[in-house]
Amino acid sequence: MKFSLSKEDIGITVSKEVDFSEWYTQVVLKAKLADYAPVKGLIVLRPDGYSIWESLRSTFDEKFSKNGIRNGFLPILIPESLLGKEKKHFAGFNPEVFWVTHSGENEVGDRLALRPTSETLAYTMYSKWIQSWRDLPLKINFWNTALRAEIKATKPFLRTSEFLWQEGHTVHAVQEEAEKEVMKILEIYKKTVEDELAIPVITGKKSEKEKFVGAVYTTTMESIMPDGKALQMGTSHFLGQNFSIPFEVKFADKDNVEQFAWQTSWGVSWRLIGAMIMVHGDDKGLVLPPKVAPIQVVIVPIYKSDDAKNIVFPKLNEIKEQLETTKIRVHVDDRNELTPGYKFNDWELKGVPLRIEIGPKDIEKQQIVLAKRYNREKINLGFNEIERIGMILEEIQKDMLKNAKAKAAENTIDIGDYSEFKSKIGKVDFLTHIGVEKLDVRKRSKKRQVQTFE
Amino acid sequence: MKFSLSKEDIGITVSKEVDFSEWYTQVVLKAKLADYAPVKGLIVLRPDGYSIWESLRSTFDEKFSKNGIRNGFLPILIPESLLGKEKKHFAGFNPEVFWVTHSGENEVGDRLALRPTSETLAYTMYSKWIQSWRDLPLKINFWNTALRAEIKATKPFLRTSEFLWQEGHTVHAVQEEAEKEVMKILEIYKKTVEDELAIPVITGKKSEKEKFVGAVYTTTMESIMPDGKALQMGTSHFLGQNFSIPFEVKFADKDNVEQFAWQTSWGVSWRLIGAMIMVHGDDKGLVLPPKVAPIQVVIVPIYKSDDAKNIVFPKLNEIKEQLETTKIRVHVDDRNELTPGYKFNDWELKGVPLRIEIGPKDIEKQQIVLAKRYNREKINLGFNEIERIGMILEEIQKDMLKNAKAKAAENTIDIGDYSEFKSKIGKVDFLTHIGVEKLDVRKRSKKRQVQTFE
Repeated sequence: MKFSLSKEDIGITVSKEVDFSEWYTQVVLKAKLADYAPVKGLIVLRPDGYSIWESLRSTFDEKFSKNGIRNGFLPILIPESLLGKEKKHFAGFNPEVFWVTHSGENEVGDRLALRPTSETLAYTMYSKWIQSWRDLPLKINFWNTALRAEIKATKPFLRTSEFLWQEGHTVHAVQEEAEKEVMKILEIYKKTVEDELAIPVITGKKSEKEKFVGAVYTTTMESIMPDGKALQMGTSHFLGQNFSIPFEVKFADKDNVEQFAWQTSWGVSWRLIGAMIMVHGDDKGLVLPPKVAPIQVVIVPIYKSDDAKNIVFPKLNEIKEQLETTKIRVHVDDRNELTPGYKFNDWELKGVPLRIEIGPKDIEKQQIVLAKRYNREKINLGFNEIERIGMILEEIQKDMLKNAKAKAAENTIDIGDYSEFKSKIGKVDFLTHIGVEKLDVRKRSKKRQVQTFE
Repeated sequence: MKFSLSKEDIGITVSKEVDFSEWYTQVVLKAKLADYAPVKGLIVLRPDGYSIWESLRSTFDEKFSKNGIRNGFLPILIPESLLGKEKKHFAGFNPEVFWVTHSGENEVGDRLALRPTSETLAYTMYSKWIQSWRDLPLKINFWNTALRAEIKATKPFLRTSEFLWQEGHTVHAVQEEAEKEVMKILEIYKKTVEDELAIPVITGKKSEKEKFVGAVYTTTMESIMPDGKALQMGTSHFLGQNFSIPFEVKFADKDNVEQFAWQTSWGVSWRLIGAMIMVHGDDKGLVLPPKVAPIQVVIVPIYKSDDAKNIVFPKLNEIKEQLETTKIRVHVDDRNELTPGYKFNDWELKGVPLRIEIGPKDIEKQQIVLAKRYNREKINLGFNEIERIGMILEEIQKDMLKNAKAKAAENTIDIGDYSEFKSKIGKVDFLTHIGVEKLDVRKRSKKRQVQTFE
């Protein structure tokens, strides 16, 4: 038969501590979250991977909607002339743009860029749609993919030439309102990542060198990964009038005087999934926070004989139905040809938060065995306590965040000034590389790249 | 100020009967569903347009999920060599493919196609993922866009070079199971379009000339538009082993013998929104079926003085809250500077299914005025009958389908054989153009292009 890395009977073969990078790749592939596409730099999401993205999308959509933001659609092709309208922006993205030159046998006129980001296209449209102060604020979000040619090795969810993301673009009559929006979005990002993915993040302001090309300033949400490196997990930009002037995004104010508008843009990508894998995963594989897990509870029956099977399954199905009525996502592993031990490994690799084991002895004792994935704790639960499982999942979610906070704290040090900062971080070379500037270091800053807000 | 076609105070200026094509375009633009992008052939969806797509997506997702289908993600770039692996398929799509030749300043090696459809990419992955009968059936759906260069004039939702769609790709161990899947999907398509968009459709089989390039056969869902032309609204293909052989989608059966799998693919696009506009719209603009309407009920207060306003608004807000508790999507038009008459026109243009008018006289009579968009009927409803509004919306949904069925019947004739068919349809030229073949005409077939199933 064909061989494949995702073949079910091979677990994770390296330790997270020993080879973090190889461990990460194995978890992504073997937990069947994603796979490499035929084109270098691109990946495919398998249902378990995409499901996590759908869960995040639905949470963000709910929060965006409460904040008056609606979704729209932008096409992927942007004419070169349009992309070049804001000079710094173009210069920043140009080296990594994919260019369409032909359709069928025919040359297209102006080369067409595959969107690296959609400011230029969105604001061309906004300029047509906005006439007066009544049309403001205009707040639209777009769920799509962005394409930026990645020359380094592909790292699923972290470094790919096409990535799923959302890009939000808002327009305001007043500067202050736009700046408030920037911060409101950053807060939504932070809260969602902490609540859904159980990852503690620090928010702050990017240095001048690292800000979004075209922005007045860029705010960012970052987190310390287990390898000690910070990961940027979302950014929210104040664009000022840097785009509204070249793109003529203007409006008649209440006195019928024409004004240039104030703008923001912001985005998070599937990199959030990469962060989740890195922060929570262990040597057995993926560990999923219950809120985003496609399967929250897996039930593994334990039996050797058909008699035992006939005793176990009716109770097991009863438990399944009871859990489903409370909207818990539950799956029964009824594969007859596999041993319970094999199944335990399989579901641990896939990161399912809670496993229920049930065999004839458990039936006798009127109980099930519950195994928590994140800390591998096992507890017994009486048949009359099944309704506690929803609460246990909530506890797991909270404990995972608490644990992640503790781990992040181990990698975090407080510093007083720039010289202490330099001595603690070690190498000045590295400092230059990550674009730190003197102005960005504040007293008691907990973070090395950014001026933090807290 | 800037001028724009979507300027609020210009309604539809042509009649649906007189210039169907111009009427359609005006409705799309002026109801703010979509707008033209800077690149010819491409459109942008504004929130009201995208919201309809989101509503359809969520309905389909629910039905797909019940049928064991999960979502995934495929990148947009397909190497030319891969696209060419199934020869007929490639020849069919080649003339309309957009080609990426450069990333930044560098030439990409093998040219990269922007996906016109993803069979070749999906099946390359499936070939890696499927080893044995245990991995089957594999049923994955992808919500994305497809790109096919359109040389004719852009028609939003109907003829664009990039379009939102879903493409489902399933793999089965047994031919019969695959063929059943083809029909199950077609049935989901039909039911969803009739229930959600209130458009009656006919399902059938495409002629050999019109089938999907690479399929064994193509089933289709079509409907008669008000201009008398049939519109293809969704297709479900039986691919047989036409792709599994070149792409080596094979599995070890229970006897451990390697077999080529049986496959299906199927899709619907935002063309469904185009059909909805054509079937239900009228000379006042868009008419939305309640189930997919972003706003289902708009409340327009009627007042001339501040005193009157102060009487009307408390009651109006009470009604709004009452409707919201029953999950009705309701909006209050509180724009102070506009007349009720202007607002009526505005919301009729946008197709909101139900309008509530409420003024001081209504308060006295303890009633509201309800205006139905689709038939422009007005009724009074007592304050104590507000809870009936949910039911009224359901009735509107049903009546819209009934009306659409009656209109479609007017454009439909029963025929007995091919010669009668030729005489009724008029021109043989046209017949050739639409690819009808003798075999496709069945006794009592109600449809001209397809061999129908009912």
